[in-house]
Amino acid sequence: MKNKFLTTGLMAAILCMGLSIPAQAAVDQEVAFILNSFLFLVGGFLVMWMAAGFCMLEAGLVRTKNVATMCLKNIGIYAFAGILYFIVGYNLMYSGVDGGFMGSFSLWSASETAANEVINMETGYSSASDWFFQMVFVATAASIVSGTVAERIKLFPFFAFVIVLTGFIYPIQGSWTWGGGWLKELGFSDFAGSTIVHSVGGWAALMGAIILGARKGKYSPTGQVRPIPGSSLTLATLGTFILWLGWFGFNGASQLALGSAIDAVAVSQIFANTNMAAAGGVVMVLLLTKFLYKKVDLTMVLNGALAGLVSITAEPLTPTIGQAILIGAAGGALVVFVVPLLDKFQIDDVVGAIPVHLCCGIWGTLAVPLTNEGTSFMTQLTGILAIGAFVSALSVIIWLALKYTVGIRVSEEEEAKGGDLSELGMEAYPEFGYGSQKL
Amino acid sequence: MKNKFLTTGLMAAILCMGLSIPAQAAVDQEVAFILNSFLFLVGGFLVMWMAAGFCMLEAGLVRTKNVATMCLKNIGIYAFAGILYFIVGYNLMYSGVDGGFMGSFSLWSASETAANEVINMETGYSSASDWFFQMVFVATAASIVSGTVAERIKLFPFFAFVIVLTGFIYPIQGSWTWGGGWLKELGFSDFAGSTIVHSVGGWAALMGAIILGARKGKYSPTGQVRPIPGSSLTLATLGTFILWLGWFGFNGASQLALGSAIDAVAVSQIFANTNMAAAGGVVMVLLLTKFLYKKVDLTMVLNGALAGLVSITAEPLTPTIGQAILIGAAGGALVVFVVPLLDKFQIDDVVGAIPVHLCCGIWGTLAVPLTNEGTSFMTQLTGILAIGAFVSALSVIIWLALKYTVGIRVSEEEEAKGGDLSELGMEAYPEFGYGSQKL
Amino acid sequence: MKNKFLTTGLMAAILCMGLSIPAQAAVDQEVAFILNSFLFLVGGFLVMWMAAGFCMLEAGLVRTKNVATMCLKNIGIYAFAGILYFIVGYNLMYSGVDGGFMGSFSLWSASETAANEVINMETGYSSASDWFFQMVFVATAASIVSGTVAERIKLFPFFAFVIVLTGFIYPIQGSWTWGGGWLKELGFSDFAGSTIVHSVGGWAALMGAIILGARKGKYSPTGQVRPIPGSSLTLATLGTFILWLGWFGFNGASQLALGSAIDAVAVSQIFANTNMAAAGGVVMVLLLTKFLYKKVDLTMVLNGALAGLVSITAEPLTPTIGQAILIGAAGGALVVFVVPLLDKFQIDDVVGAIPVHLCCGIWGTLAVPLTNEGTSFMTQLTGILAIGAFVSALSVIIWLALKYTVGIRVSEEEEAKGGDLSELGMEAYPEFGYGSQKL
Repeated sequence: MKNKFLTTGLMAAILCMGLSIPAQAAVDQEVAFILNSFLFLVGGFLVMWMAAGFCMLEAGLVRTKNVATMCLKNIGIYAFAGILYFIVGYNLMYSGVDGGFMGSFSLWSASETAANEVINMETGYSSASDWFFQMVFVATAASIVSGTVAERIKLFPFFAFVIVLTGFIYPIQGSWTWGGGWLKELGFSDFAGSTIVHSVGGWAALMGAIILGARKGKYSPTGQVRPIPGSSLTLATLGTFILWLGWFGFNGASQLALGSAIDAVAVSQIFANTNMAAAGGVVMVLLLTKFLYKKVDLTMVLNGALAGLVSITAEPLTPTIGQAILIGAAGGALVVFVVPLLDKFQIDDVVGAIPVHLCCGIWGTLAVPLTNEGTSFMTQLTGILAIGAFVSALSVIIWLALKYTVGIRVSEEEEAKGGDLSELGMEAYPEFGYGSQKL
Repeated sequence: MKNKFLTTGLMAAILCMGLSIPAQAAVDQEVAFILNSFLFLVGGFLVMWMAAGFCMLEAGLVRTKNVATMCLKNIGIYAFAGILYFIVGYNLMYSGVDGGFMGSFSLWSASETAANEVINMETGYSSASDWFFQMVFVATAASIVSGTVAERIKLFPFFAFVIVLTGFIYPIQGSWTWGGGWLKELGFSDFAGSTIVHSVGGWAALMGAIILGARKGKYSPTGQVRPIPGSSLTLATLGTFILWLGWFGFNGASQLALGSAIDAVAVSQIFANTNMAAAGGVVMVLLLTKFLYKKVDLTMVLNGALAGLVSITAEPLTPTIGQAILIGAAGGALVVFVVPLLDKFQIDDVVGAIPVHLCCGIWGTLAVPLTNEGTSFMTQLTGILAIGAFVSALSVIIWLALKYTVGIRVSEEEEAKGGDLSELGMEAYPEFGYGSQKL
Repeated sequence: MKNKFLTTGLMAAILCMGLSIPAQAAVDQEVAFILNSFLFLVGGFLVMWMAAGFCMLEAGLVRTKNVATMCLKNIGIYAFAGILYFIVGYNLMYSGVDGGFMGSFSLWSASETAANEVINMETGYSSASDWFFQMVFVATAASIVSGTVAERIKLFPFFAFVIVLTGFIYPIQGSWTWGGGWLKELGFSDFAGSTIVHSVGGWAALMGAIILGARKGKYSPTGQVRPIPGSSLTLATLGTFILWLGWFGFNGASQLALGSAIDAVAVSQIFANTNMAAAGGVVMVLLLTKFLYKKVDLTMVLNGALAGLVSITAEPLTPTIGQAILIGAAGGALVVFVVPLLDKFQIDDVVGAIPVHLCCGIWGTLAVPLTNEGTSFMTQLTGILAIGAFVSALSVIIWLALKYTVGIRVSEEEEAKGGDLSELGMEAYPEFGYGSQKL
């Protein structure tokens, strides 16, 4: 219920009065306004930090020759996403949706400003804090795509896709639920975005991977899979820890309020559950890869943490801690089994973003009714399918349009040379290994 | 006083009334509940981030061939610690201790939930926020061990030790003070855990290092010390900065309350003192190593920062800033002198965790009476010895039990090859240096 | 208005009463005290984190042989800056300035402490929280210098300069505006320090670079520029993301209050504007380098983000989001054009700190009147020139005094060998590339 603050506030107020919280304890309206806004800001800077997490994770999982390009893409994504969300995305997602299919095409502007002292405290929070928090989510969806299609996509066509994704595809489907559109009216529930953020990135990535084709040498003509290890597992681990940290903001601040004791309790439960789902994912993958392959696979364990996080994102509030661990662990197991499946279809997902964000995004959304009585499996499935179909269809159109106009894939020679030398004319580590051979 | 919130609150209230804060200024109970919970959450995510700090520090201080293993251990520790603390640790530490030696064996569950609106505001904070904050401390204790015993311990026996440490050893000794047990009644004071967290990790690490023995080649048969430099000083530096940042949560939120002006003042003083103790440690080691060895030793300086942080952790509130600088500087000096001492006894501590966490943990705890009048040197010593004896004895038993059953040390061949290839079958930097030689 | 809390609070109160906020909604004094202090602490730890950002950025942009030295300098700067600001800086900047040119020479001590319960709530915040927040700003100014003069400056003379800069130069000029001195009375406006922090570091760096001279081999005798690529673009990117994150604290908490709805709105606007100025810088440099050089330059793009951030720092509150994007984009363009200009004058700025912090600091300060009606272009120029002249003059004196006594530049042999081996006797990456050749 990302846009339904007043209703939530009202519900909370009613709950407070009817139960163990005495009516007179209700928090002063202005204090609640400050606390709600501050939650958005703290949660927002944590989610902003996830941009660095994706960057480090992806830079660590590509080969040295594409590391600088990966860094450039990630900082570029975060910048473009913010600008597009300002120019068109926010209002397309939140302005005048009213049970429909999209909002309005217009620039966003703050509904109040400190300078002219027009503060409407009944909204419950500063509009700029809300905008900031929603904006950082958009970048997350786009960051997911960059990992999957790495090492062979052209730089500027990639940014073109990001612009359409963050300016139009993401906000339109987001309006259906968080903007108060038709899926919201149907009862679809996705607390912080297992489907609305993660699977959206996942579908766009999957379509991109199929249309782009695999990296040269990833699959032999006879269908053998050649593993292409990433350049730095320390960066990949750092990226995972950054994402784990950022997720407290992603899920915790999606409570959208901290102006009552009930909200404080809710945000606390979400923090605990989010953490433990990730822990469940880690332990599951650790044991599973040891059992299946005799060696523990660190990359897979890192994806296990992320799998747990994505899985709990659709409903981090209602599960008990034990349930959160199980939901995360199931997400981890899913990753272990989906990664080889993708290879079977020769879908080359460089960082494992499709199993993590798409598959666990779906799993997490389907798992909501297990702990949240107010939801139904069929409605959840409807939401997953509707959003999946919409995002996939539009992504295919954009990827193909780019492919047949400017082209999306670098030449074979450029791919062999790597993006860093061919697109940027520089090396990530000019004095080391690959770099020091001065190609 | 980690479990004495109500008493503290009452004291604060009395103080407020009697002094310059007018009685009618007392903060609304619900607002205090929100602020207290939020402090736990913000402090908690900062301490969670320390898991990444330990990971980067330790990955930077081992050789390339053990870097991925180090990363795996650290993310695994954080996951196992949370799960164990949920299954048994929290209640063993906090449930029904009452002056005794341990709490009860039971799963933790939240005493209130947002869903069923049972909020008891008299506790002063959301129970899940408290659990989250206590949980992240457990992981810290275990992270300390992994650095010391690195590069020669077997992966799964190490995790087995972590499980016992985080599920049983840590919570039982923690109950003695923070759970309201016998040491608390005696008057032992350890604000944020110089002894209860850091020395606990330190003792467990020391016993492990002795039982495991040194890495092959660290000491020549004639007792010469061969320095084994770590693979990446940038990662070690990054890890130190992360730990420094996280420590604001570690010490600051250990005030356990932000619901009154006095609490806000206290948390602020703790922030300033924590920072300046670390600064004192840095400057002391910088000057000392320059003076003693003619060259400044960066690794030692990094440990100087951590030494300052550990030293101030037992009492970050009562010192003035000048005193905090001196307490931290003394901790830094301690590290410079203890590191060669350990080498004399051929105790191979890969990252210097024993000087930093054990020695400075003891120093910091003994330094409490210097600035806190309510404590005594003899009681502090009693606490240090009791906890040291308990943790060391149990650690020895567990390490030996593991040694004589599954074994704790890798084979000589595996040690030479490194954990990354022998336990994980992968390399941290497959395109570089060591990695590119394709062992 | 860093030292004018009461005035601001009063203004806010008056605004509240006169407008849409009902008078009775005024936040309880103690709650406001807590929230104001907490804003300083959260903002403060974010700015502290910028020390890690500068460290990673600069370590990534120097050659491998100077990486450990860079790390040492950055952790040392942060430690020295805090100690000096405690010993003399804070009171020199804030104590008894009263329209004059500097405060008093004295140790700082907290005006209230939790232990003796002397809380004066009329100040509006805990004095230690304010000290902590101001202290972290000092380190930023010094960090800027270290990047420019890297790879050829002697370690201890560098620290000597840092001590004078953080203990005297920075606080004295800071007192002119934020301490309530003559520039403040003149109407000079620099919200979070485009001039007072960033250009101060920039001027000191520029004088240092000129007096030190360029690195050996940077410019050929015929004036050709030889690019010297940095050792790790991933570290440089990580550093940029850290700085971006920290800037939310730098600018956001410079509102200095969170105790009213208007403050919450202001902090939220500042977060949004800060982010979007950086985004504007990124996109501008991305497109400009592609257009001018056919290849996108990642290092330049990273500096574009920082350029945007520095540019918005003088006035992050009054611009609309669209204006913030443009201000940041102009800063980005400035960097693209100033970098080659510096090379023309053979001023060797290793990390590009002069274009980013000095030029964009000036640009941002001059841009204030574009959106803030209460300021004038001439007053802004006066402040820029006065501070520039003062800092430059004193910096020249200190740099020259150091040069002609202890010397500031390493020998040619040491420069070739690198700081890591010559000053620290260690290597950042002993098993890799340069390191593995065992010079």
